[in-house]
Amino acid sequence: MSQPSHLPYSGIASFARAPVVEPGGEWSADVAVLGIPFDIALGFRPGARYAPRALREASLRYVPPFTDLSGRTRLAGVTLADAGDVVLPSLEPELARERITQAAGQVRSRSRLPVFLGGDHSVTYPLLRAFHDVPDLHIIQLDAHLDFTDVRNDTRYSNSSPFRRAVEDLPNLVHITTLGLRGLRFDPEAVAAAGERGHTLVPMEEVEDLFRDVIGALPEGRPVYLSVDADAFDPAVLPGTSSPEPDGFTYGLAMRVIREVVRRHHLVGMDLVELAPNLDPSGRSSLIGARLILETLAEALDG
Amino acid sequence: MSQPSHLPYSGIASFARAPVVEPGGEWSADVAVLGIPFDIALGFRPGARYAPRALREASLRYVPPFTDLSGRTRLAGVTLADAGDVVLPSLEPELARERITQAAGQVRSRSRLPVFLGGDHSVTYPLLRAFHDVPDLHIIQLDAHLDFTDVRNDTRYSNSSPFRRAVEDLPNLVHITTLGLRGLRFDPEAVAAAGERGHTLVPMEEVEDLFRDVIGALPEGRPVYLSVDADAFDPAVLPGTSSPEPDGFTYGLAMRVIREVVRRHHLVGMDLVELAPNLDPSGRSSLIGARLILETLAEALDG
Amino acid sequence: MSQPSHLPYSGIASFARAPVVEPGGEWSADVAVLGIPFDIALGFRPGARYAPRALREASLRYVPPFTDLSGRTRLAGVTLADAGDVVLPSLEPELARERITQAAGQVRSRSRLPVFLGGDHSVTYPLLRAFHDVPDLHIIQLDAHLDFTDVRNDTRYSNSSPFRRAVEDLPNLVHITTLGLRGLRFDPEAVAAAGERGHTLVPMEEVEDLFRDVIGALPEGRPVYLSVDADAFDPAVLPGTSSPEPDGFTYGLAMRVIREVVRRHHLVGMDLVELAPNLDPSGRSSLIGARLILETLAEALDG
Amino acid sequence: MSQPSHLPYSGIASFARAPVVEPGGEWSADVAVLGIPFDIALGFRPGARYAPRALREASLRYVPPFTDLSGRTRLAGVTLADAGDVVLPSLEPELARERITQAAGQVRSRSRLPVFLGGDHSVTYPLLRAFHDVPDLHIIQLDAHLDFTDVRNDTRYSNSSPFRRAVEDLPNLVHITTLGLRGLRFDPEAVAAAGERGHTLVPMEEVEDLFRDVIGALPEGRPVYLSVDADAFDPAVLPGTSSPEPDGFTYGLAMRVIREVVRRHHLVGMDLVELAPNLDPSGRSSLIGARLILETLAEALDG
Amino acid sequence: MSQPSHLPYSGIASFARAPVVEPGGEWSADVAVLGIPFDIALGFRPGARYAPRALREASLRYVPPFTDLSGRTRLAGVTLADAGDVVLPSLEPELARERITQAAGQVRSRSRLPVFLGGDHSVTYPLLRAFHDVPDLHIIQLDAHLDFTDVRNDTRYSNSSPFRRAVEDLPNLVHITTLGLRGLRFDPEAVAAAGERGHTLVPMEEVEDLFRDVIGALPEGRPVYLSVDADAFDPAVLPGTSSPEPDGFTYGLAMRVIREVVRRHHLVGMDLVELAPNLDPSGRSSLIGARLILETLAEALDG
Amino acid sequence: MSQPSHLPYSGIASFARAPVVEPGGEWSADVAVLGIPFDIALGFRPGARYAPRALREASLRYVPPFTDLSGRTRLAGVTLADAGDVVLPSLEPELARERITQAAGQVRSRSRLPVFLGGDHSVTYPLLRAFHDVPDLHIIQLDAHLDFTDVRNDTRYSNSSPFRRAVEDLPNLVHITTLGLRGLRFDPEAVAAAGERGHTLVPMEEVEDLFRDVIGALPEGRPVYLSVDADAFDPAVLPGTSSPEPDGFTYGLAMRVIREVVRRHHLVGMDLVELAPNLDPSGRSSLIGARLILETLAEALDG
Repeated sequence: MSQPSHLPYSGIASFARAPVVEPGGEWSADVAVLGIPFDIALGFRPGARYAPRALREASLRYVPPFTDLSGRTRLAGVTLADAGDVVLPSLEPELARERITQAAGQVRSRSRLPVFLGGDHSVTYPLLRAFHDVPDLHIIQLDAHLDFTDVRNDTRYSNSSPFRRAVEDLPNLVHITTLGLRGLRFDPEAVAAAGERGHTLVPMEEVEDLFRDVIGALPEGRPVYLSVDADAFDPAVLPGTSSPEPDGFTYGLAMRVIREVVRRHHLVGMDLVELAPNLDPSGRSSLIGARLILETLAEALDG
Repeated sequence: MSQPSHLPYSGIASFARAPVVEPGGEWSADVAVLGIPFDIALGFRPGARYAPRALREASLRYVPPFTDLSGRTRLAGVTLADAGDVVLPSLEPELARERITQAAGQVRSRSRLPVFLGGDHSVTYPLLRAFHDVPDLHIIQLDAHLDFTDVRNDTRYSNSSPFRRAVEDLPNLVHITTLGLRGLRFDPEAVAAAGERGHTLVPMEEVEDLFRDVIGALPEGRPVYLSVDADAFDPAVLPGTSSPEPDGFTYGLAMRVIREVVRRHHLVGMDLVELAPNLDPSGRSSLIGARLILETLAEALDG
Repeated sequence: MSQPSHLPYSGIASFARAPVVEPGGEWSADVAVLGIPFDIALGFRPGARYAPRALREASLRYVPPFTDLSGRTRLAGVTLADAGDVVLPSLEPELARERITQAAGQVRSRSRLPVFLGGDHSVTYPLLRAFHDVPDLHIIQLDAHLDFTDVRNDTRYSNSSPFRRAVEDLPNLVHITTLGLRGLRFDPEAVAAAGERGHTLVPMEEVEDLFRDVIGALPEGRPVYLSVDADAFDPAVLPGTSSPEPDGFTYGLAMRVIREVVRRHHLVGMDLVELAPNLDPSGRSSLIGARLILETLAEALDG
Repeated sequence: MSQPSHLPYSGIASFARAPVVEPGGEWSADVAVLGIPFDIALGFRPGARYAPRALREASLRYVPPFTDLSGRTRLAGVTLADAGDVVLPSLEPELARERITQAAGQVRSRSRLPVFLGGDHSVTYPLLRAFHDVPDLHIIQLDAHLDFTDVRNDTRYSNSSPFRRAVEDLPNLVHITTLGLRGLRFDPEAVAAAGERGHTLVPMEEVEDLFRDVIGALPEGRPVYLSVDADAFDPAVLPGTSSPEPDGFTYGLAMRVIREVVRRHHLVGMDLVELAPNLDPSGRSSLIGARLILETLAEALDG
Repeated sequence: MSQPSHLPYSGIASFARAPVVEPGGEWSADVAVLGIPFDIALGFRPGARYAPRALREASLRYVPPFTDLSGRTRLAGVTLADAGDVVLPSLEPELARERITQAAGQVRSRSRLPVFLGGDHSVTYPLLRAFHDVPDLHIIQLDAHLDFTDVRNDTRYSNSSPFRRAVEDLPNLVHITTLGLRGLRFDPEAVAAAGERGHTLVPMEEVEDLFRDVIGALPEGRPVYLSVDADAFDPAVLPGTSSPEPDGFTYGLAMRVIREVVRRHHLVGMDLVELAPNLDPSGRSSLIGARLILETLAEALDG
Repeated sequence: MSQPSHLPYSGIASFARAPVVEPGGEWSADVAVLGIPFDIALGFRPGARYAPRALREASLRYVPPFTDLSGRTRLAGVTLADAGDVVLPSLEPELARERITQAAGQVRSRSRLPVFLGGDHSVTYPLLRAFHDVPDLHIIQLDAHLDFTDVRNDTRYSNSSPFRRAVEDLPNLVHITTLGLRGLRFDPEAVAAAGERGHTLVPMEEVEDLFRDVIGALPEGRPVYLSVDADAFDPAVLPGTSSPEPDGFTYGLAMRVIREVVRRHHLVGMDLVELAPNLDPSGRSSLIGARLILETLAEALDG
């Protein structure tokens, strides 16, 4: 009999039972996890502040290494660290962004692959600022919405604007591919601005047919930051999100896209945002989110 | 920066922020919305009485006009009015039906396209009575159940009987097409009666293949009343309904059917019934319902 | 039989079925209601953004006038108006505070008694700014917490600080009486600062014994702003609040205190804040909140 | 070790594991239970239709006989039968009332003490019709509301009117004592009509002081029908009810009143109505309801 | 008008309104239902103890016989009996297994087709012991997980091990076909052990393509025990289960597999396990579970 | 401005932000916390397995030191450690008890005051075994139930028996005082056995009057283990518990009792058991539980 180990509901929940570290402490790891429990920039139903904790708890069902049905073992020699959550202020958005960028930078400098647990999608902007020095940075975004709006509800920093702010600040951010777009309404100015920059916008109904081409159209081996918005998923699959849109990704399709990304390019960071555990009493939203992260790690680091 | 506007959870919720009117007041609009918070005729789990309010609240995420990804703007010049809810009695079903018919008639006479928010499906009978003067009236019904039963649980007016009562009362109602039928049990007498009248019954598993043919088989340009039962949808997609049946419509398929209907025929009225917001803590059922209505309006009025 | 009227779940929900007006429009009323769906300044569990709508819906069980058991009819000739919600930005707290103060001022100038539906407690600061011209202003605060902290979690504008900011800005605000204080921890600097200003702090366990004396100790007939934090209540009575503390007010005791206030002084405004309907599936929190407001109006305007 | 027995969540749930009988079958018992899952006559939040099943399930924690702390064993030799639920139609209120009266009569004729599980309070009228032959019938009603209204929302048969209809139909019903009245609004016509008939109306705040006097003022040994509305209770104690009012009965006070009733008079029937299990995810409402019934039986039959 | 009958929420809930019997009593039936409310052997989220009662309640929407759209009536002459639940101890797992085996044997000997309502998947082991005398027994398992682990979390009797224990005890159990396998992690020892025994393991993504071949590869007419784990289903379809895995069976595909099984082989028993009604506030998980059982009966007994 | 610190929903949740240690590691602290997520020995509604994590999360609102309204600061110099949860097996109760006793002993030997987070009440037996060497050990138990039953539902180790097993095993356990007893049924054998041993049993309705006498009747300065069952509380106050009984402790009364205990005696350990966070969507049950622990520590260590 092997060493006793905790059941998923037992033990203090760090991500996948990784050792807990300080973002600015002395450590290094293949993968480092950082939570950003910030959700005051969304315009509808709050709850993403609970996601980092919920994702850690859900991750306890998926502690690596994994052996699959064919006998292949993955993430066996990979080291993980959990850097906890960014210490955020109440209400002060600019200060919050500074702290997020700083902690993300610390985590990035100590790991090969940082994983960020949002928070609403506005946090991707300060997270990306920690990648300002990555030449030729590409983003792959799975999302129902474009999130490239200049101003929404009188602010430039809502969860509709992270990528607009990022391209303004980061000259190294050369291209964004957004997959899964759908919904009744788009901001025409944002669509035009993305088009002018040459971004690739893929409506949901074309993802299955086009994703290989779109990912393959990028020069191979690009440094890619992957940003997964929970509302990319079909709300039947992942109901716990502020602004669901019907007919989205299945888990399987999302993983096929991600597999293609990490196979052809170099993953330098990822986030999972807009997960609202409070809107899903079944708990499956957090479980799927945690599994997506761990399966992405397995694909990226064992590929 | 544009004029400040309310976030979806803010402001008094009329449908899509339309002006509020009295059903019998002095107004006219392209589209008029009327709620019927009546759910005492269903035989299982109540809650449809909460649907009109929930649909109004959800509609605030979809206030027209909409610009889609291709830049096309829809519902830009279309006027909407919200006529509130029918003032219903407690318990007295006959009086309730009279009031529903009267208010529906008032709303219909003041708008090009009335939209009715149920309520359980029994309300479709008194609603249809307000269309007694439309020659050659056709119904397209999206529904898991036939709802053509003569008597159920000792009543002729339950949510299983609206179309049976309607065909008895309305000589102008010439044909019903029901799409999405499934489930373990059907009322054989009702199936036979519908068959004798020449109604078209399409099981769910054949909808995708047959819907164009079935809709195309009707003489073009017919006046069509569209009745959408929430249980037409797959319960994974729309769990908030009294009597769910697995393996139903996706949102996308429902919209493809509706698009075909409004492209070939003339939409004279629609209802969305059997939505039970209390059975879906994720809120996605109401959001999908509101979007379906608004997207149908965009298809019907901008087509 | 009287004129048919809506059941509580029916009809578009303005507060107590009052006519809907614009804050800056042309109207006047004895009582005006204004919602402030702002909850990004609290430090724990969001949801107060849903309170204005929930309180309006709950108020439909208590549409005046009321006749009590003794036959006395109250609020019969009193006019109400519902000014809707302040149009708030996302995220931009300073702009939010400006809009709140402006709308509150508009509502105040058009009514004898404005009633504000929060929102978290931070909104009381911009609300009070609309009372900057009331000489000798007193506040009666029902609250588990002091909310007089200078800085919390790096901000001066959280829901822990509204009264601190108010006394800094409003020289006319001469005194605050806080009833219901309890909990494990107090900010010693805040307690000291309140003490230096001569505020009256009444722990919950002494409220029953002291409230008459404390209210009676103020010079009679003072202009009083009443601020009711939902967490003043015992969480058994009102569970839907971000930061509950056990052993609080019953509804009856709260009303006895309020009755004493309005009997001896002059109510110039009131708010109900920190109600989080999403944390109470039984719905009783919103029902109690709405009743408290309407019963306060009855006491204040019919006394 | 005693005979194995089911855990409360196990086994088919009849009331307190009583044998299941047909209302009109061949059986007799000291106590007989009959469910009336009818809730279409209430004017707010449905759910009382689920109460008979929920009360049966909750009763499994309280299967008699009971031994108390002092060693006294109660309900040891008492026989119980569960007559299931009245078979009700959908929607047809008059037919429903007929069936309720018939089944209640059958159950009454086969038992010493029938116990009725509502349903909304409207069911008490047809239940009482089964007691038309009890001379000098008295009612003790625990309720926040008077339920003596002539017409509400255009019907004479809502849950606001059961006792008004009963006194019209039953000349033998000589007196009603209502304890627990509270709330903002009363129907003045109903209050006057009850007053004219000499009914005793006790506001909640006077129950503790007056209940012995009020019950003692009735001639001793009267046949009493006890009607317990779930909203008599404080909603903190019993949140699962359609129309809660704060500051109601504790369980202990309710039992003290009931104990006094059964000690001085002769209990000929009882009902528990307006319990809405769907509004209380904690489950305590059903547990308290079931316990109240069983403890009342213990008091009435072992006294 | 036909004989009045109960609405689904009415009446004491035996499975599909079958007569209630004792497992060891004097009765016989075509189909007998037995509940096993045991869930202390799962390693994550409890709730399967509530499934037998929830499945009985849900079954009331599907009381046979059924007439389908084509007019075919099914389960018309088939007799059902509900043997209630096994009387289980608290905590004592070995005693629990004995009682389960004994009751299952009693039920099996009195019926053609016993149906077992779990409980977690550990109960399948003691259930299968009641089939020790069926020569050449085959199992068809619909499941996300293999459940063939030797030891997990220090026990040999968890819900991960029922089939491992069964093959050790039952020499007559010759083959297991598992369909629907997926997830990040498999127990390599268990996979190897199943492989050595020649079991057939079908990953979820291959079920649609392979199920006919796999079922057809077994010698025709085998006695088959069908074990359906609720987590075989896509969690969008059936969210109420302890350990969901994305991208599972639709209801339709599950029924196609089952139809193929019962068409080619001889169904000798079935169970539905791991349903956790407490994790699905929409109720659809129980409704789907009950329908699956009744539709399987219709296929097996009318085929 | 002080050092930034986490909001309660932020950061990895150890109890009151205490450093995380291994039960058997090298550390010492004034107070050490150990979780026991074990709930398979209760006979009704599971969920106590989630309590250790929920109590840790709730404790983040109450991180010491605390300053009270009078300016007194408490728990300032006290060191805390969080030893995580006992690593428990699935299903194997004897092994679970061994692991609990071992970990409790390790924690006890490294701290002045160990605090145990249940789990159901059965865990108190193996916890007490770690106190076998405390001469003259007394227990103060706050509980609705006696939990002194010999055998229940065929087991000797359920949550009804912890103290019976403890007195059999621990000759040093000389006396138990149980406060808060209530409910319909008691096990007469257990009551007699407790009486024979001279235990003190205080019904809930006498607690307020008797608690000082009862605690004062023990010889002063006794080593006391405090066991708090969540169902000691009134379910209105703390609804999240498996087996609630109405009319229990308020928070204030419980703290008055505990204050008296720690003032007169020497607290050597405490547990909080039977908290089921899953049964309380308002979250107040966990918040009250965490506060009770921290306030008890403040009383015991600063007294």
